[in-house]
Amino acid sequence: MRDIHICEVGPRDGLQLVRQVMPTATKRAWIAALAQCGFPELDATSFVPPQAFPQFADAAEILPAARAASAQWRVGALVPNAKGAERAIAAGAQMLYCIVSASHSHSVANTRCSRDEQAEIVGDIVLQARARGDARPHVMGGIPTAFGCSIEGRVAQRDVCHVAELLVARGVDEIGLADTVGYADPTLVRSLVKAVRGAVGPNMPIRLHFHDTMGLGLANVLAGLEAGITTFDAASGGLGGCPFAPGASGNIATEDLVFMLEQMGLRTGIDLGRLLAATELLAAALPEERIRSHLREAGLPKVYGVAA
Amino acid sequence: MRDIHICEVGPRDGLQLVRQVMPTATKRAWIAALAQCGFPELDATSFVPPQAFPQFADAAEILPAARAASAQWRVGALVPNAKGAERAIAAGAQMLYCIVSASHSHSVANTRCSRDEQAEIVGDIVLQARARGDARPHVMGGIPTAFGCSIEGRVAQRDVCHVAELLVARGVDEIGLADTVGYADPTLVRSLVKAVRGAVGPNMPIRLHFHDTMGLGLANVLAGLEAGITTFDAASGGLGGCPFAPGASGNIATEDLVFMLEQMGLRTGIDLGRLLAATELLAAALPEERIRSHLREAGLPKVYGVAA
Repeated sequence: MRDIHICEVGPRDGLQLVRQVMPTATKRAWIAALAQCGFPELDATSFVPPQAFPQFADAAEILPAARAASAQWRVGALVPNAKGAERAIAAGAQMLYCIVSASHSHSVANTRCSRDEQAEIVGDIVLQARARGDARPHVMGGIPTAFGCSIEGRVAQRDVCHVAELLVARGVDEIGLADTVGYADPTLVRSLVKAVRGAVGPNMPIRLHFHDTMGLGLANVLAGLEAGITTFDAASGGLGGCPFAPGASGNIATEDLVFMLEQMGLRTGIDLGRLLAATELLAAALPEERIRSHLREAGLPKVYGVAA
Repeated sequence: MRDIHICEVGPRDGLQLVRQVMPTATKRAWIAALAQCGFPELDATSFVPPQAFPQFADAAEILPAARAASAQWRVGALVPNAKGAERAIAAGAQMLYCIVSASHSHSVANTRCSRDEQAEIVGDIVLQARARGDARPHVMGGIPTAFGCSIEGRVAQRDVCHVAELLVARGVDEIGLADTVGYADPTLVRSLVKAVRGAVGPNMPIRLHFHDTMGLGLANVLAGLEAGITTFDAASGGLGGCPFAPGASGNIATEDLVFMLEQMGLRTGIDLGRLLAATELLAAALPEERIRSHLREAGLPKVYGVAA
């Protein structure tokens, strides 16, 4: 029983900007520790071209390892194109994380494709998923720069809605609004969720993905909760960023998100003590990375988990 | 014209835990920079015993300097007792920041007095303020550990309401709910504000004072806004803490608070560019301190201040 669905994106989005390639055995150990925490979903790796992204050269090994680590979670991966989807599906991916940027400039910088071209690619990925019949993976259509772009600045809500409509027309199972560069604020969150829900209809699930660049990550989650959102991405230790979004810093830290939600009386199903232990493993494996987790620094307070 | 009243508490609460005594000339330069930012209120210093708190030995010099730096802000100081109030009033304080902890253990650790004894002291301070007639300073009755205590853990809302009632009975002009140790969460903020408002009546102003120990500071501000609160304390650079609250870390960073509010379309009257410049001065003056300001690290984004 959980009220809020948290997808741990550390092994994918979190490692995306980390220069030091994490050894496969270390990734497996970290993912095994995450598997003990109770997450319903893991964004485990990225099926990007291995020669361009050595961090994810082991994707075909990591994905089945993550599946083997727990029967309780849905294991997904970022797939940038049809080739990536083919590899991800072959490796057993249960969720395909596709993206079409709301900002044209970010789309071109990140994928060398226009938004329309990228939406066509998502359409191909959906067809591949559907070809698996009953075993078809869930297709998540994420929209980076939905709350602003460090290249273009403000991004019009009608552009975000347009991309969301394109994704739904291509057959995605879910829409994700991603604050790739940390520009979101609570007012914008409420407003954009309302606009996108209006565009895609009330039955299309929407998830939110926030970065904490400006320190507003958890306030934005709160605004999202108030707008009725119940699925959030987060990365252990606040790792993360986007190589094509200058100035972007880490994702919201999963530890801090779980702490806030549980303190608010919302059930995440996640064991915070085990999660902090998993983050210690991560921190030891990446000594040069900055671990941005308030909980890790402050420790669990006396009031955690005690009935009000 | 401003929607939200921010009291900058850096020179008092911010410096409280800083071991390195900031030279008076440096404090004056920092306060002069803050005076250019548009704050309506400054918590400038602390009239605690100078021999026990060398950081504030220059209180009688800092307070008039802060008043001279701007005619636009109300200049206040923490006053722990009648002697402190006498010194603060003599120095020209326009606001007396008094405290009575919600937690008995914190009250004793911090002031060596019970809550009732401390409330009596506040009563004496109010009398001293009133004796100034038309020039009487505003008396702020702050309640540390209102959202929890690192010694006692959870603090009952009835205890917080009881202390608020004591303070109102002693004649304070405003109640402040302080999350001294960073235990607040948005649900608790909404619930406690409602309870305290019920206890003290709708006409007694309430301010909120959050620390960012668990990273929930700005989410708690958002909950406070939704509960109708329009006055918040914050410290430049996220400085701060409480010597008698183990594990407490910095206040919410004023820069980040201003950014969030302005992005949400709320006017603070504060010039964020000038504030960031003042924080640079602070950071240079305290090279050993950790400056916790997302804005300072990330820089002002492209979208700041552009009409939606």
